[in-house]
Amino acid sequence: MLLRKVTQSPAICSTVFRLQPAITGAQRQTGAVVAVQNGRFYASQAAEVRLVIAYQYNVFIITFSNIEAHNFSPQESKSFAVNMFKGQISTSQVFPFPSVLNEEQSQFLKELVGPCSKFFEEVNDPMKNDALEKVEELTMEGLKEMGAFGLQVPADLGGVGLTNTQYARLVEIVGMHDLGVGITLGAHQSIGFKGILLFGNPQQKEKYLPKLATGEHIAAFCLTEPASGSDAASIKTNAVRSPCGQYYTLNGSKIWISNGGIAEIFTVFAKTPMKDEKTGEMKDKITAFIVERSFGGVTHGPPEKKMGIKASNTAEVYFENVRVPAECVLGEVGGGFKVAMNILNNGRFGMAAALSGTMKGVISKAVDHAANRTQFGNKIHNYGAIQEKMARMAMLQYVTESMAYMVSGNMDSGATEFQIEAAISKIFASEAAWLVTDECIQIMGGMGFMKDAGVERVLRDLRIFRIFEGTNDILRLFVALNGFQNAGNQLKSLQKALKNPFGNAGMLASEITKRAKRKAGLGTGLTLQGTVHPELNHSGELTVKAIEQFGAVIEELLLKHGKRIIDEQFVLKRVADCAIDLYAMVVVLSRASRSLSQAHPSAQHEKMLCETWVTEAHERVMQDIKFLRSGTSKQIFKNLRAISAAVVENGGVVSPHPLGF
Amino acid sequence: MLLRKVTQSPAICSTVFRLQPAITGAQRQTGAVVAVQNGRFYASQAAEVRLVIAYQYNVFIITFSNIEAHNFSPQESKSFAVNMFKGQISTSQVFPFPSVLNEEQSQFLKELVGPCSKFFEEVNDPMKNDALEKVEELTMEGLKEMGAFGLQVPADLGGVGLTNTQYARLVEIVGMHDLGVGITLGAHQSIGFKGILLFGNPQQKEKYLPKLATGEHIAAFCLTEPASGSDAASIKTNAVRSPCGQYYTLNGSKIWISNGGIAEIFTVFAKTPMKDEKTGEMKDKITAFIVERSFGGVTHGPPEKKMGIKASNTAEVYFENVRVPAECVLGEVGGGFKVAMNILNNGRFGMAAALSGTMKGVISKAVDHAANRTQFGNKIHNYGAIQEKMARMAMLQYVTESMAYMVSGNMDSGATEFQIEAAISKIFASEAAWLVTDECIQIMGGMGFMKDAGVERVLRDLRIFRIFEGTNDILRLFVALNGFQNAGNQLKSLQKALKNPFGNAGMLASEITKRAKRKAGLGTGLTLQGTVHPELNHSGELTVKAIEQFGAVIEELLLKHGKRIIDEQFVLKRVADCAIDLYAMVVVLSRASRSLSQAHPSAQHEKMLCETWVTEAHERVMQDIKFLRSGTSKQIFKNLRAISAAVVENGGVVSPHPLGF
Repeated sequence: MLLRKVTQSPAICSTVFRLQPAITGAQRQTGAVVAVQNGRFYASQAAEVRLVIAYQYNVFIITFSNIEAHNFSPQESKSFAVNMFKGQISTSQVFPFPSVLNEEQSQFLKELVGPCSKFFEEVNDPMKNDALEKVEELTMEGLKEMGAFGLQVPADLGGVGLTNTQYARLVEIVGMHDLGVGITLGAHQSIGFKGILLFGNPQQKEKYLPKLATGEHIAAFCLTEPASGSDAASIKTNAVRSPCGQYYTLNGSKIWISNGGIAEIFTVFAKTPMKDEKTGEMKDKITAFIVERSFGGVTHGPPEKKMGIKASNTAEVYFENVRVPAECVLGEVGGGFKVAMNILNNGRFGMAAALSGTMKGVISKAVDHAANRTQFGNKIHNYGAIQEKMARMAMLQYVTESMAYMVSGNMDSGATEFQIEAAISKIFASEAAWLVTDECIQIMGGMGFMKDAGVERVLRDLRIFRIFEGTNDILRLFVALNGFQNAGNQLKSLQKALKNPFGNAGMLASEITKRAKRKAGLGTGLTLQGTVHPELNHSGELTVKAIEQFGAVIEELLLKHGKRIIDEQFVLKRVADCAIDLYAMVVVLSRASRSLSQAHPSAQHEKMLCETWVTEAHERVMQDIKFLRSGTSKQIFKNLRAISAAVVENGGVVSPHPLGF
Repeated sequence: MLLRKVTQSPAICSTVFRLQPAITGAQRQTGAVVAVQNGRFYASQAAEVRLVIAYQYNVFIITFSNIEAHNFSPQESKSFAVNMFKGQISTSQVFPFPSVLNEEQSQFLKELVGPCSKFFEEVNDPMKNDALEKVEELTMEGLKEMGAFGLQVPADLGGVGLTNTQYARLVEIVGMHDLGVGITLGAHQSIGFKGILLFGNPQQKEKYLPKLATGEHIAAFCLTEPASGSDAASIKTNAVRSPCGQYYTLNGSKIWISNGGIAEIFTVFAKTPMKDEKTGEMKDKITAFIVERSFGGVTHGPPEKKMGIKASNTAEVYFENVRVPAECVLGEVGGGFKVAMNILNNGRFGMAAALSGTMKGVISKAVDHAANRTQFGNKIHNYGAIQEKMARMAMLQYVTESMAYMVSGNMDSGATEFQIEAAISKIFASEAAWLVTDECIQIMGGMGFMKDAGVERVLRDLRIFRIFEGTNDILRLFVALNGFQNAGNQLKSLQKALKNPFGNAGMLASEITKRAKRKAGLGTGLTLQGTVHPELNHSGELTVKAIEQFGAVIEELLLKHGKRIIDEQFVLKRVADCAIDLYAMVVVLSRASRSLSQAHPSAQHEKMLCETWVTEAHERVMQDIKFLRSGTSKQIFKNLRAISAAVVENGGVVSPHPLGF
């Protein structure tokens, strides 16, 4: 990426470096991407950058005007997740817990939270939407009036101009009340027209965003096809450029398109034949297009009958000889896969935020029941069986909420590497919300199974969240493989260094010492002391130990499997599970540390949530690592593979019935 | 229970003793309960008992006619589950895997399986029933014609006269196709009129069973009330005896009654004021009544709107001054709690059988998808992420199926102690079916979320199975506490013996040796060698080790908590989890051993299912035990309790929003 170096004095530079996690606002306002490397500070696309740096309750404004072009390729990642795969701890993105809103942004958001909550409590009727299988007209109109369809569209284009963090806070309210409405809104702005926001040129933004922001036009994201779900690169929809170069002819069909039946504007991914610059051969590459229904040739199927999120429209969308003007190409021709992945990566934090809200609502219902239901002479919240459920629900919500605002905060601070974290937040949130809602039903007993209680609808709605926008299985592979890739690069440098040990004495010495210490069961010098609140030092130590062992096992696995690690999905699943647990540990450590430092009234409660979570997660990670290192895992994986093969071969269960027929 | 001793020669007696697991049929035909103790053979309620003993493929018939009354109270339990809590292994109920059908019964059942499957494949339409929210009339008529409403009613009373095992096999087919129909049938015969079958006098049986067997009359089981779900003893519905003693006046209401809106015959549990024989005071005790809708005063509410099993009718039932003739008391006056618990205990194996069928069907769908869906250039069953799901689904089905037929086989063999095992089978089956169906949806991706695929309905249907007929949480307490009670009794004998060591030298010596060996990490002499197939010796050893450690921790917990163990629900949950895993280990060991001995073509596959299951279950049990013994568990339980208390106190999530508002 082409960035521009900001020349500045070393003193300011070092301040900016230390405060980097708290940098807010400015880069969005100017469209600049900001990064700090080796004590130097870089910004993209802007001749002048005005930085608003919020640190605790102080706001600094520093203006840089002398900016040079610079080809920026970061060597050292600031991503916690990337680093933990190397057995390293990078605290800059995770400590202190992000506080990215300035006074004005915070005030503005506060003014939105009240009316939004009120609207969902008083106007929207989730049970009715579910029964009607559409969002009631009254609700749709109300949402449009509130600006809910253009939350992140810049104000000058008719939107509310929210940051990711502000957006998360409102989405959380929607998620608490009605996931069907949430999908209608999310399919529109989190993915439907997000491509225009991220990759649109000024003309495209000006043309489309105003009507999308008001909800006059609804948007949809058209990637999935009957034969390509997780494997997005295999789409068959194609767009052929006209000889004159003025337009593309689009043909194909897309399935399970949220808003597919009601959208006017579609972000469509299609194959376009392109000449390979190296070989000169023609090759299909994916390009993203903005397609208007008014172009003609765009039709859709009937609304799909689904398990949940019934209020949201889902339909097949067909494109038959649609003439798409060349100026509707979104991003670069042939760069569509990157566009799609960026849109999805950018949207994931929103899902975590929404589901954190869902859980909060569900927990309130469970508490209400447990506090009022008497069985065996006591309110049921007095029984351990219920207490364990309640406590686990609270922990899962705490982790999810912490992840959601950690990721949105990082994004708002200009972090460019948050993909692993965003994927983890989506996996974690969708599974946590499922468990929490399922337990709420269990606490409520028969009542929870009845429609009137309103919880069974939530469970039905939630089922799709583990599937769409990247199934959790695929995202686990994504998390593990991304991590391995980064760790692999580091390992390669190390291996190179080993070939020329005299020229790399410093690096080698430190790496060799680290390994020797790890093997001897000694600490590698990694520590979170001084970073976490002193009351959480023990939890910090458990986290460090788990990261050290994780880094070690990643290296062992890389040395053992090399590139073939990509095919070891049994291993990758467990590696991803560890990564999820580790990231969860660090986000709650960060959040509870902040609460302790600021002496929140809830600080001791948060400390308990954090300590309980960390103790159990540490144990899980250690178990997984022990298993991965054991001979048992090899045998178990072999058995699982063989059992599955036999079941597939047989078309179902292999063992004959115990009665013989 | 009053039983009669069968006088007989020691030689026959010993044969019977060895063959006891295979005793079939006769006791049901004559209504006798059969038990063997100390080489003597007992039968209840019958002047003549003709035993049909099926051993492998030979059938012996032995007639005993000289029978004496005997007050039978077994000292040594044959229940595997009861014994494992004492760290002992009783193999008689679990090895060899029950083969309880004689040639004739087997043949009869075979003739039913085909038409029943065909009916569900060709006539019944589960999707339509779900949409209609009732079982289609055509299906109801067809089921009645098939005799599906009276499967266990004796043939001379118009039923099909099936044993529990035969019943399980047919219920499995229903469960595979339509759980809504399953509940309609199950609420009718598995609980609705089961009380009449188990406790009815001849007049009651003759009066009610014929019309119930044909389905002309539908039955319902009325226990649950708005204020009493799990706490059945707290019901408020009351029945007051008339001064003349001729009738009872019944008042009250029952909720969530399956078939409540369509039933003619109700098994109703109500409080009746009774004089306590010891104190002379009046006390309310529960009595079971047969109530006909035609008595008048019986009404019902509208069908409940539910998450699933929509085809089955669920309604409130109201009893307003219903005059119930005294001859409609079922069992003893004041003995209603026992009646209710016996009905539920007797019905649980059926749920495991039904859900084993559900899983089989769901697995076929998952296989069909995995074998045909291509992503990233391969059929998806080639990916480890999918293989692990498929293999785990197959294992869960194998365990559930094995449990279902183990328990039904034990019941058919006249076992009187199967309550822990039956409860375990209900817990396991309902959780396994949930996981299997959830994973099927995950494998199918977006398709699984659509109604057309027919899997989302199954998941919705399944949600209630972890709740009704004893929530899994309550059943876990039941499993653990029953086990503790038995172990506690043994411990008491031991403690008594310690006070008079000279008179109990033998017992003490063996117990002390056992403990010393266990502590030293040596085997206690327990073994499954010679019982399991030699190829499964290693799995047998893992199981024995787990049982030894389990017995030890149970004793430690009893010594530590004494009677207060009843309040330690955090502990009880983990103890129950261990018990479930241990029972699952032994049932698959038994089944796979039989397949290996009989050289089934699938024997090696079953061996792999068994070994994989046992390896993982052993690890889980050891982890749980380690945790229970650790200081960490004490801290974690304390934290969970405190977190829950704070959440309840606060009416929901305690931690303030990370943004502060």
